[in-house]
Amino acid sequence: MKLYQEENLSAASPSRRRMLGAGAAGTLAAALTLGVSSTANADAGKGAPSGSPNTYDVTAWKIKGHPEVSAQSDIGAVINDIISDIKGRQSKPDSKPGAVIIIPPGDYDLRTQVVIDISFLTIMGSGHGFFSRSIASNVDTTGWLELQPGGSHIRVLTPSATPQAFLVRRNGNPRLSGIVFRDFCLDGVDFVPDQNSYRNGRTGIEVASDNDSLHITGMGFVYLEHALIVRGADALRVHDNMIAECGNCVELTGAGQATIVSDNLMGAGPDGVTLLAENHEGLLVTGNNLFPRGRSLIELTGCNRCSVSSNRLQGFYPGMLRLLNGCKENLITANHIRRTNEGFPPFIGRGNGLDDLYGVVHVAGDNNLISNNLFAFNVPPGNISPAGAQPTQILIAGGDANVVALNHVVSDVASQHVVLDASTTHSKVLDSGAASQVTSYSADTAIRPTP
Amino acid sequence: MKLYQEENLSAASPSRRRMLGAGAAGTLAAALTLGVSSTANADAGKGAPSGSPNTYDVTAWKIKGHPEVSAQSDIGAVINDIISDIKGRQSKPDSKPGAVIIIPPGDYDLRTQVVIDISFLTIMGSGHGFFSRSIASNVDTTGWLELQPGGSHIRVLTPSATPQAFLVRRNGNPRLSGIVFRDFCLDGVDFVPDQNSYRNGRTGIEVASDNDSLHITGMGFVYLEHALIVRGADALRVHDNMIAECGNCVELTGAGQATIVSDNLMGAGPDGVTLLAENHEGLLVTGNNLFPRGRSLIELTGCNRCSVSSNRLQGFYPGMLRLLNGCKENLITANHIRRTNEGFPPFIGRGNGLDDLYGVVHVAGDNNLISNNLFAFNVPPGNISPAGAQPTQILIAGGDANVVALNHVVSDVASQHVVLDASTTHSKVLDSGAASQVTSYSADTAIRPTP
Amino acid sequence: MKLYQEENLSAASPSRRRMLGAGAAGTLAAALTLGVSSTANADAGKGAPSGSPNTYDVTAWKIKGHPEVSAQSDIGAVINDIISDIKGRQSKPDSKPGAVIIIPPGDYDLRTQVVIDISFLTIMGSGHGFFSRSIASNVDTTGWLELQPGGSHIRVLTPSATPQAFLVRRNGNPRLSGIVFRDFCLDGVDFVPDQNSYRNGRTGIEVASDNDSLHITGMGFVYLEHALIVRGADALRVHDNMIAECGNCVELTGAGQATIVSDNLMGAGPDGVTLLAENHEGLLVTGNNLFPRGRSLIELTGCNRCSVSSNRLQGFYPGMLRLLNGCKENLITANHIRRTNEGFPPFIGRGNGLDDLYGVVHVAGDNNLISNNLFAFNVPPGNISPAGAQPTQILIAGGDANVVALNHVVSDVASQHVVLDASTTHSKVLDSGAASQVTSYSADTAIRPTP
Repeated sequence: MKLYQEENLSAASPSRRRMLGAGAAGTLAAALTLGVSSTANADAGKGAPSGSPNTYDVTAWKIKGHPEVSAQSDIGAVINDIISDIKGRQSKPDSKPGAVIIIPPGDYDLRTQVVIDISFLTIMGSGHGFFSRSIASNVDTTGWLELQPGGSHIRVLTPSATPQAFLVRRNGNPRLSGIVFRDFCLDGVDFVPDQNSYRNGRTGIEVASDNDSLHITGMGFVYLEHALIVRGADALRVHDNMIAECGNCVELTGAGQATIVSDNLMGAGPDGVTLLAENHEGLLVTGNNLFPRGRSLIELTGCNRCSVSSNRLQGFYPGMLRLLNGCKENLITANHIRRTNEGFPPFIGRGNGLDDLYGVVHVAGDNNLISNNLFAFNVPPGNISPAGAQPTQILIAGGDANVVALNHVVSDVASQHVVLDASTTHSKVLDSGAASQVTSYSADTAIRPTP
Repeated sequence: MKLYQEENLSAASPSRRRMLGAGAAGTLAAALTLGVSSTANADAGKGAPSGSPNTYDVTAWKIKGHPEVSAQSDIGAVINDIISDIKGRQSKPDSKPGAVIIIPPGDYDLRTQVVIDISFLTIMGSGHGFFSRSIASNVDTTGWLELQPGGSHIRVLTPSATPQAFLVRRNGNPRLSGIVFRDFCLDGVDFVPDQNSYRNGRTGIEVASDNDSLHITGMGFVYLEHALIVRGADALRVHDNMIAECGNCVELTGAGQATIVSDNLMGAGPDGVTLLAENHEGLLVTGNNLFPRGRSLIELTGCNRCSVSSNRLQGFYPGMLRLLNGCKENLITANHIRRTNEGFPPFIGRGNGLDDLYGVVHVAGDNNLISNNLFAFNVPPGNISPAGAQPTQILIAGGDANVVALNHVVSDVASQHVVLDASTTHSKVLDSGAASQVTSYSADTAIRPTP
Repeated sequence: MKLYQEENLSAASPSRRRMLGAGAAGTLAAALTLGVSSTANADAGKGAPSGSPNTYDVTAWKIKGHPEVSAQSDIGAVINDIISDIKGRQSKPDSKPGAVIIIPPGDYDLRTQVVIDISFLTIMGSGHGFFSRSIASNVDTTGWLELQPGGSHIRVLTPSATPQAFLVRRNGNPRLSGIVFRDFCLDGVDFVPDQNSYRNGRTGIEVASDNDSLHITGMGFVYLEHALIVRGADALRVHDNMIAECGNCVELTGAGQATIVSDNLMGAGPDGVTLLAENHEGLLVTGNNLFPRGRSLIELTGCNRCSVSSNRLQGFYPGMLRLLNGCKENLITANHIRRTNEGFPPFIGRGNGLDDLYGVVHVAGDNNLISNNLFAFNVPPGNISPAGAQPTQILIAGGDANVVALNHVVSDVASQHVVLDASTTHSKVLDSGAASQVTSYSADTAIRPTP
């Protein structure tokens, strides 16, 4: 991808140039002072013998002068030392192929934040290792055969000052490129003060500076407050991951372009986002199966010309899918959108602060097309808010020339399929409900009721 | 995924709690009596040296006391012995990360059924190895350069009492979780009595007890009567596999939820199913290329709120895509559905017992949306059954409030695009054919013919 | 897949039988005369020790009698020697499982073309290693931390007589099957005469004879004139790759069937194609994010019953998506199609020779369905050609019974949403623009303007 040339995003979106703020920089410095030697390790590559020094096995690596540290005791310190070794060996700008760091199946504690400031690094396990800590936390586990995740299983035990297990960032040019995370498990271990809070301050992976062609695939994330944050993404792929029981799943912050989020299983905690994208251009979200909870399931803010198609969404609150802050020309099509209500006792009564007039789908922006989706709404009448109101399936809260077409709604209560606020202009609503199920407060809405 | 909490499926679907019946349990017992030692093997992990004992290479593993058994002679016995070793080493419930079992490219006979009763096990090859045994079985292969599949190639030679090459099941709690099958070949070798029968009793993988977050990817399956059966799936991914020339391809039995079947190439034998799902909630079937034959290509029974989008289907019989037994609120959209007829001599004249009034797509249930699909029908008039009838593209056989909209049909013979039986209520048919191409036997169908 | 049986493609498409012409055969002969010994290497498999001889590591392999050749100096010669070793060891047609050739991260020069004439070979790296050579070529790179791609990084330095880094072809039967390329980087290094020409004659992978179930996944391609060419594909998967800054990305030539192109990030040079398919049946193109430039982004010629759904396309010229030469019964749905204009100085003023009456989408053929797409057109009025014309979004240039339905267009200039040439018959245009935005030169077009 040529960021500057194709989109001129750097001009359009100053945030893409912004690096991590002072606080985060401080955490970075803290991480870097870990004191591990950057001297090439005599055992380099020993774990996966080959003619190449660029294959590392965390279980075979020893930190010089620190025989007490192992991958099991602190995989973060081990990986930082490996990165240091790579940097020591690969010093010429025209030959820095990076390396692969292999994490065999096993339980590893991560006590030291990993800082990745080299391109082309692959960190690869052999098992996403997902396990439902939430079930285990809420039932009697006496006699249970397993009690925690597995596979290539990293227990994220980072201190609060450096909460990210993996912090990817670098100053200078070029952007970090071609980093791959695949097939291992990042596990936040527990939530505090209780296991249903979905809060522990821990982040699995945060990419904090502009980046190109990163690839996150085959991973498992569980019990992290933030699973994956990527700022300034260009040509990112988040593909085929299992991200569940995390406060927030995927947060694409700052700005970004030409990214794919596909084939993931994801579900956030009640307060968090399942997929958030800020100021993205040309993001493609397709083939994902998104399940509860999540304050929202897909939340685009300031995003233009993105596509959300062929996904399945199930959520418990209004605003499952949101286009906010002037989202323009986005395509929302061929999705299955299931709104139902909470049935799990610890969360009953929880909400996201929005009422049912907010819309299962909420749109603020211009020229978006919301078509060919199936809405399946099933909330007991007594749980509808405001009491007695007809819930709104699609709210066009503002903007020009939005089109809502060929959506089918099935609902256990009478509902408004489409509501258009007075500030909307030139909207069209086609084949998305009977006349009585479409309400426009704008004078110039074209409505063709479903026959 | 939290099965119990989000969906209360355990209450709604007793079948999810059901374990394998007595017959299957018997086969399990038989498999377990194989007599391989559970003593830790001195060579553990030798095949892929690392600091971790959790990486196994089948070609380096020796079964204690059985020097005559190798991966080549019986990979099933070898893998069972490895699993026994894992269980011996990982005995504490709070530290059972599992392992990866590596199958290098090679030909392996599987004579003993593998029983997987641990979580987080990855079984991984380096090549799906698909080869068209069907072509080889039906032509003169004199001079052929290869005669069977390859890659990490397992010849399934299981006895009829234990037909599954891999049986995944466990009693007790929690459900098995995070098991991964990737990048190897399961080959049923031959069909009996003839190579076009698609019958040999052999199954590639059967997951027989409730499970969470399993991942089947990059696999090849060929010449098995059943390629993959998963009972009680939660958050399953069946992604990017090649499953062809099998009696049945993917069978999701019992019940399940929040599963993705995507990016697979699949085609079943004339009597079998390509993708079957029973009592699934929120299954997402997208991006699959499904080819002949298959009595059906996608068959959902008792499934609710599932999504079938962006697939390509080619089939030879009526009922290519079926929603049966009260399927509710499913979305069938953006699919290409090609119905043509058999051209391969051994199968000419074969059928699935259904006539062309059954519908290329057959729907029994409520509130399903069938929209935006392209139907391409090309069957010689003489092959249409009943003789002289106009074949039906979409049959709404029963149910309330189904919507058929914006489907384009091209057909070599005059056909009914949509037929609605008398028992249907409140159906809508929009832009899916001329008035003469839509027939409703129900009084309350709303029809808007395509202009 | 049974090519002959299901589709009778061999009869229908003689081109599928055609092998590489004389010129290419000559290049093959040249490659084969490399003079590397086929004697089994004493070090076989040494790089990745296991009980299997079928795992090779290029960095551990020595060519007998050529100690001066290493993977670093000529990975092509090394891989050819490994293939020779495989063929020497696997000589019986009923046992040729192939092998995996592992490319650890590192920089490798490929000076000798690799010729793959065995099935079931997996060539696997640990990093797609994409890096934007285009940015690096157009800015001052003083102080840059990296200057070229990485990961498992192959610099393609093939001579012009044998331009393909990997040439996959074989005479005789059966077709080559089950070959896998995954997770490495093919880098054409530079373009000549200048870095913005996108020309250097180099091809990453060319599959030149009929093939079955090949799998290209996780790869990176950069700065090649042709990234990937596959002739005669059956059941091919091109999945989850990064293919950018190449003259042409994916070219499916000759004919093919039942193929998936999904989840790729791709963008070609200004003169080339991003995805080209010739005479394909049942191709499924879904979930791809296609970005500039590319003379076209998706170009189907003589293709029938293919599906292009849930993709995102951004392009700079007319004819972004083309159905040519009698494409029949294809489904183009749920795509986001962004047409904008070049902003990068070296390419400003470049075009593809087509004017804006050609259509962003151009269709010549019968019974295609173009539905439910979002067109976002933004070209300065002064750049529209012919000057003063209203650009055409969808041109039906010829053919019978095409349907254009439910497309939403947003444009910065007045445009014709759909234009139908006089030679078209029985077209339908539904809900794709106001009456003034749909122009038919044919008498029998059915038009339903958007309300």
